[in-house]
Order: sequence, then structure tokens, then C-alpha cells
Amino acid sequence: MTLNPVTPEFVSQLRAQLPGPCFGEVTPGYLEEPRGRWRGQAGLLLRPGTTEEAATVVRMAHEARVPVVPYGGGTGLVGGQIATEGPAPVLLSLERMRAVRGIWPEENVMVAEAGAILSDIRDAASGVDRLFPLTIAAKGSAQIGGNLATNAGGLNVLRYGNARDLCLGIEAILPNGEIFHGLKRLRKDNSGYDLRNLLIGSEGSLGLITAAALKLFPKPSSEGTALMVVPSPEAALSLLALARDHLGEGISAFELMHRTGLEFLNETMPDVRLPFADLPDWFVLIDIGLARGLDPAGALEALFAEALDKGLASDGLIAQSDAQRQAFWAVRESIPEANRRIGSVSSHDISVPLSVVSDFIARGNEAIAALGPYRVNCFGHLGDGNLHYNVFAPMGEMRGAYVAQRDAVKRTVHDLVHQMGGSVSAEHGVGRLKVEDLERYGDPAKLSAMRAIKAALDPRGIMNPGVILRG
Amino acid sequence: MTLNPVTPEFVSQLRAQLPGPCFGEVTPGYLEEPRGRWRGQAGLLLRPGTTEEAATVVRMAHEARVPVVPYGGGTGLVGGQIATEGPAPVLLSLERMRAVRGIWPEENVMVAEAGAILSDIRDAASGVDRLFPLTIAAKGSAQIGGNLATNAGGLNVLRYGNARDLCLGIEAILPNGEIFHGLKRLRKDNSGYDLRNLLIGSEGSLGLITAAALKLFPKPSSEGTALMVVPSPEAALSLLALARDHLGEGISAFELMHRTGLEFLNETMPDVRLPFADLPDWFVLIDIGLARGLDPAGALEALFAEALDKGLASDGLIAQSDAQRQAFWAVRESIPEANRRIGSVSSHDISVPLSVVSDFIARGNEAIAALGPYRVNCFGHLGDGNLHYNVFAPMGEMRGAYVAQRDAVKRTVHDLVHQMGGSVSAEHGVGRLKVEDLERYGDPAKLSAMRAIKAALDPRGIMNPGVILRG
Repeated sequence: MTLNPVTPEFVSQLRAQLPGPCFGEVTPGYLEEPRGRWRGQAGLLLRPGTTEEAATVVRMAHEARVPVVPYGGGTGLVGGQIATEGPAPVLLSLERMRAVRGIWPEENVMVAEAGAILSDIRDAASGVDRLFPLTIAAKGSAQIGGNLATNAGGLNVLRYGNARDLCLGIEAILPNGEIFHGLKRLRKDNSGYDLRNLLIGSEGSLGLITAAALKLFPKPSSEGTALMVVPSPEAALSLLALARDHLGEGISAFELMHRTGLEFLNETMPDVRLPFADLPDWFVLIDIGLARGLDPAGALEALFAEALDKGLASDGLIAQSDAQRQAFWAVRESIPEANRRIGSVSSHDISVPLSVVSDFIARGNEAIAALGPYRVNCFGHLGDGNLHYNVFAPMGEMRGAYVAQRDAVKRTVHDLVHQMGGSVSAEHGVGRLKVEDLERYGDPAKLSAMRAIKAALDPRGIMNPGVILRG
Repeated sequence: MTLNPVTPEFVSQLRAQLPGPCFGEVTPGYLEEPRGRWRGQAGLLLRPGTTEEAATVVRMAHEARVPVVPYGGGTGLVGGQIATEGPAPVLLSLERMRAVRGIWPEENVMVAEAGAILSDIRDAASGVDRLFPLTIAAKGSAQIGGNLATNAGGLNVLRYGNARDLCLGIEAILPNGEIFHGLKRLRKDNSGYDLRNLLIGSEGSLGLITAAALKLFPKPSSEGTALMVVPSPEAALSLLALARDHLGEGISAFELMHRTGLEFLNETMPDVRLPFADLPDWFVLIDIGLARGLDPAGALEALFAEALDKGLASDGLIAQSDAQRQAFWAVRESIPEANRRIGSVSSHDISVPLSVVSDFIARGNEAIAALGPYRVNCFGHLGDGNLHYNVFAPMGEMRGAYVAQRDAVKRTVHDLVHQMGGSVSAEHGVGRLKVEDLERYGDPAKLSAMRAIKAALDPRGIMNPGVILRG
């Protein structure tokens, strides 16, 4: 399939159809991504202000066979927003479509445009005494459209699910420019194929999400947070089971962290106050939100007492104030930034079945040690079996010397994940970074079906070419 | 697309590839459906014992262009399992594939074959002290494969979601006979397009689900059930909001019922004991399951006291024993059977946004009254906005005289649902019954995309032709 670059003729055709504010300047930020691994290219930046304008862009790009790269908050970690190859594309930014179109607190539903910033959506929900639970480190700049396009995960998946689980309906532009009007505010709707879930997680390669009907939740009546030192990842899993036994669905987050993460914080972000005098090898952050009549601190104390008794925890801190809760969370939420400041040789966003998490960590560490004197910072969403298993150069050494081994490190980790029934793309998506991994580890029948679906919905291959599937 | 009938030559080709037990006799039951509206046809009944055998059937049918109709428990209400037109198909029954392949209680996961009966799956979960929450009236004969193919809803959707929300992965045969190995036991897996959710709800028209990895849940520590008389559907919705405020995610079911349902029970199933001396116009069944340390009866009493105070309930019964809980549930679960015994003129499985439920009922009743002296039994899963709005002949009259108006009744209800932003197919699916409705009310861009997907994955149109999309 031949794609065409943005030509002056194409631009003047667009100018005839779209109002002036749709045309923006491609400042450097649009061509960069958080890890600094790639630099993108763009023939034109378009910022539609309405769904109809977005549809016009896609329809005209379809007609002219010009590639379109959807651009949300630019926070993606797998290069889905960065076109490095092929003709310089139209960069289609949703930044002007950020309205909350409606909130129905009595239905627990909000309809928001794709360009709305995640934290603004959370605030809007909070304003009507509701919770929109999706939360990720990049929540201050990530847009909900991108969250849905990549099926973002984050910190509250254990209780509330991934982005796709939080979406009741979408409005989207299909690759031929048609508008899919699917913004129904329904909890049950079995009327044909699940186009919503097909577009969610397709990373802009099957269409452009322009708005979404989102699930809200009653705010828990009271919340609590604890840090508990655990003897091992295995004990952490048993502690999670015990916590579920105590608290049912009341557990909002259950995050595993390793001493390496604390060392990185010490090294790069000394302002983040560490809650432990002696750094523990492994510890968990437990966040709970309870219904009326329950006391979170009391519940966490009871849990800790039993965990101590059963040898599942050796030390624990229960937040006594909102400030303390925030301080505990600051540790967890600063670790990704500390990782970036140290600079990984290779980062891995993986998931494995819960019962092999502990074995995976042990075998992974052994395999990495066999490759060299690496430091591993393994942390993540334990309740989801989702670990960020990130590999760094030894303390005091520059990563430059080790980057040559990046592919070997990645292959070692990913082979092990695959062998243990896991996924090498848990919550960050495939983007352009993991296309080869998908080809290597993906199910062949699924890959054939995906290619057939891509060809059927986007026969000219204009939508985010090179993402998920080779262009 | 021309499809071929099952010929003696095709049968002998199959006999050469498949062991004897795969070949079954087409007894009348396979050609009937619960509402007795259609009678099906079958050229051959095949009952594969393994995934590979099922793949052989589909591959050979693909090669010979012979239609394949997947058959689960035969409990579907929209004719998805009944082929009335075209060449007599292969009926592909999963009845011999009913193994639970594995249970991982510590992961809250079970892998079961598609032919496993829903109640057997629930029992298997219960055997390891876990809950598989999907429950529908037909649970004793419905198979999990059919539940997934139709994205079944049922009584616990409010808390645990639809069938699709309870599935982590599937194994399936694609229309060309390839096996999609997607049985991963992962909570997070963003590795490509969501083929799982595309097949779930496609009612066998995009492939055949042969096994599924299912989510289990910790059993609530204690459970409770109440019936509360409400002044109106609107009050019932406010009561639900109040219940959520009291109990958070602890509410497992919230079912609205009308006096007509009780009258039907009186008339056709006098063994079902009615809990009210004076039949109320509207009442709800509330089922809760709580974590450790909470007392369900106490929680329901507190809820009732506040509801009474706020005018949201006028009478209430709180189950004091398991026998009473079962008696309350028997009322709700017997209503569909009572409806069948009375025999509806037209039944409607619809959903609307929660905030218009009450308005929908009022306007629907008015519109139906304008058509004739019908009785309406409106009941259902209020928390999901999912109502079964069923229309019956007047008391003492045979429905025969009214059946001629069936299309007008259906059209009246469905037009109103569509106008109010709802779905005319909430939890039962489209099947062959609602193909025209989908064409009338469906989003045109979605329908085009669905046809493109069908053509891409099943170019010969062999999989359940005529279901969802016109064959």
C-alpha cells in the first residue's frame, strides 16, 4: 500500500474545508516522547474542534491516502504517537476537543471528549461526588482518548478494571471518515459486534476515538492506606488474598515495590521522604475504600495484626492522616520518574498469571544476573499480575556500556514471560516498540485475524501505520 | 455467497477425519427453542470431543462451503441456535466438551470448556470456596460457551458485570478452521486487537468459542436478601442510590418487579408462595453480599429504616434464613416461566439510560394502552437499566386474537426505546429475531464496519448465517 505525504495541494484542500483554528504549528513537543528514544515527523498538525471536523480530516486523508497519526497527551511509552517512518503524516491532535459533554450522577455516567485530560475528568467526577477511578502517573497530561486507545491500566485496576472496563460507549471516526455514533449510556447493550472494544486498545490503528461515555462510581465513604513490609513477593500474594478475605472489593490498590526503587528515589529524588529507616527488600502499598460504617484504619490494623501473626508481614505503617496517605502514595508514584532519571537499559511492562509471579521474579533475576551485573527494579500492580520489570546498569556505571545488550536483556525477559503464559505488553500497549514482539509471541491465528480486520476497516492503511501491525 | 447443503459425500469426508462419537442423532430437541416460535433444520449433528475435532469440522465446512450452526444449551431466546433458512447446516454441539480444565483459586481463575453447564461451573467454583457470579434463569442447561457467545447478563451484572466482563481469555475456532489460542489467565494483556471481545457477543457468527478462562471472586463473607415495596420505579432508583451509599459494591442484585408478575404467578404457578398478602404495584428484590465483620440483616434494616423515612419504601421483608432468601428469589426466578405459561404477545429485552427508566415505563404503558387492552409485565435488572417489558393479551382472553398486532406492539416499544437512547437488545442478543431491528435502529457506520469484519473473518459466510447480519 502506498501512502502519500502531505502536499501543498492537500493542505489547501483541507484549508477549504476546515476553519483556521484547526491548523496548528508542529512544535518540537509533538515529535518527542517521554523516554527520548524516538523522534517523530509530521507533515501537518491538525486540531479539530468538533467531531465533524475530525471526520473531515480522516475522510480527506483517506481519499488522498495520507497517513494520520492520532495525538493525545503524548505520554505513551511505546511510540504509538511517534511516526518515524514513511511519508510525514498528518498529526491529528484532540487537544481542542476537551469538553465534558454531560454528567449524570444518578446514572454514574459522564460523557467526555477524547481530548479531556484524565485529571480533569477525575476532578469533574469528584465535583458531583463521584469517582472516575482510572489513575496513572501521567494523569496530569494524558488524555482520555489516548487512555482508551491504549486501554490504559494504572493503579486501580484491581478494583475497577482497565480503561476498557470503564467505558460504556464511544464516538469514533472510522478510517474511511464515517462517524460511529456509539455514545450510549447503557450498562447492557448486545446489539451486534463489539466495535467499542475493538477500537479500544487498537492504538488509533482502526479509527479515532472522539468521545466516550465513562462509568463513574460512588466515592468510597472512607479511605485508608498502609505500607507493609513483606518477606517475599509470594508472601505479598498471600497478604493480598488475606486482605480480600478481610475486605472484599474494598481494596482499591495493591502495589508491590522493591528496595531498588527506594534506592533510586534516594539517588535521584531526595525530596521524596522515604517512610522506612531501614530500607526493606520488598514492601506493598495497600489502599482501601470502604462503605459507610467501616473504619479504614481499624480494618488495616486488623489486617496487619493477622498478617504479622501469619508471617506475611514484618513491619507496617498505617496512614493516620490524608497527608500521610499522600506521602505513602508519593513513594509509589515517584518511582517511574526515578527510573527515568537513572535511565534503564531495558524496561518491560509484563504480566503473568498470579500464581507464577513469584517464580517469574526469581527466574528473571537469575537470568538477568547471568547476563551481567545489572540492577533490577521490579515493581507494579501485583493484584493484576502486572510488573514493571526494569533493568539498569550497575550502580555508578553509565548505561551506555550496557545499551548494546538491550536486545539480549529484553529477549531474555520476554522469552521467560511468554514461556510462563504471560504477556509482554500488559498495560502500555504495543505501539511501534513491540511490533516485533507481537509477531514473535502472538498467536498466529489471532495475528491473521488482526491483519484481516485492519485490511477490512482501513484498506488504505492510513490510520497510525506501523502501530501494532507492520505497515 | 452460495452455501452448500450437507451431502453424503461431505459426510463421508467427515467420517474419514472424525471418530464415531462425534456423529450424533438430530433428535427433535435440537430443532426447537424455548419460545416455540421457530423450528430449525439440520443436515447433520456433530459433537466434537476436542478442540482439534471442532477445528476439523469448521475447516472442512469452510472448504465445502457448508453452513455451521453452533449449538450450546439451546436456551437462547432470539433464535441464534435455530437455522430456519438456507441449506440444512451442520449443527455443531459442544455437549461433549464440558471439562473444567483447571482451577486456580489463588488466582481467582477457572478454565472451562465451552460445553460446561453454567450451574456446573458455579458449583466447581463453589467447591474451591470461590464464586462464579454469572447466573440466569436457564443456568441448569445453558452452557458457558453460549453464555459468552451471546454475552449473557442475568441477575448479578450490577456487581460483577456481563459475561464478557467475567472472561479473561478464550480459545476459539475461527471461520477458516484455525484455532485461536487465547486462554491466557491474565488480568492485563494489551497485545493487539481485542479478538476476545469481538467473538464474545458475536453469537457464533465470527467463530466458535471452545473454552474460556473465567474470572472467579472471593465468596462474600455473608449474604442477605430483602423485598421492599416502593411507590414507583423512580423511587426504586432512588432506593438503589441510597443502597449504594450504604453498602458500596456490596449490592449483588437489585431487581424491579410489578404486580402483574405476581398475578401471573398466582394464575400459573400457585406453588410459588407470594410474600405479600396485598399485592403491591411495584417492589424490588435487593441481594447483598458483604465482607467480614458486617451483618447483612442489620445493614438491610438500616437501609429500610432510612428508605421508609425518605418515602422510598412503604413495606419491607428482610430474609431471616436461607430458606427465606430462597423463597424471595423463587418469586423473581419464576416470573419468566409464568410469562411463558401465560404466553406473551410480544416480549422485549430492552435497556435505557438509568435516568429515563421511569419515564420509559410511563410512556411505554401509555403507548401500549393506546393499542389495545393489553397487560404489561415489566420487570428486570433495574440497576442495569435493563427491563423485560413484556406485553400480554387481556386477562381471560386468548393471545391468538392479539398476535396479529405483534409487530405493531414490538415496533411501538422499540421505537420508544430507540428514541430514548436505549437498546432493543440488552442481554438476549440479536440472533435471527432482531436482525431487522438492528438494521432499523443500529448505527449505520457500525453496521458497515460489522459487515466488513464479517466478510474479512468469514468470507464464505459459513458461521451461523443469518444471525446478527442478514446472510
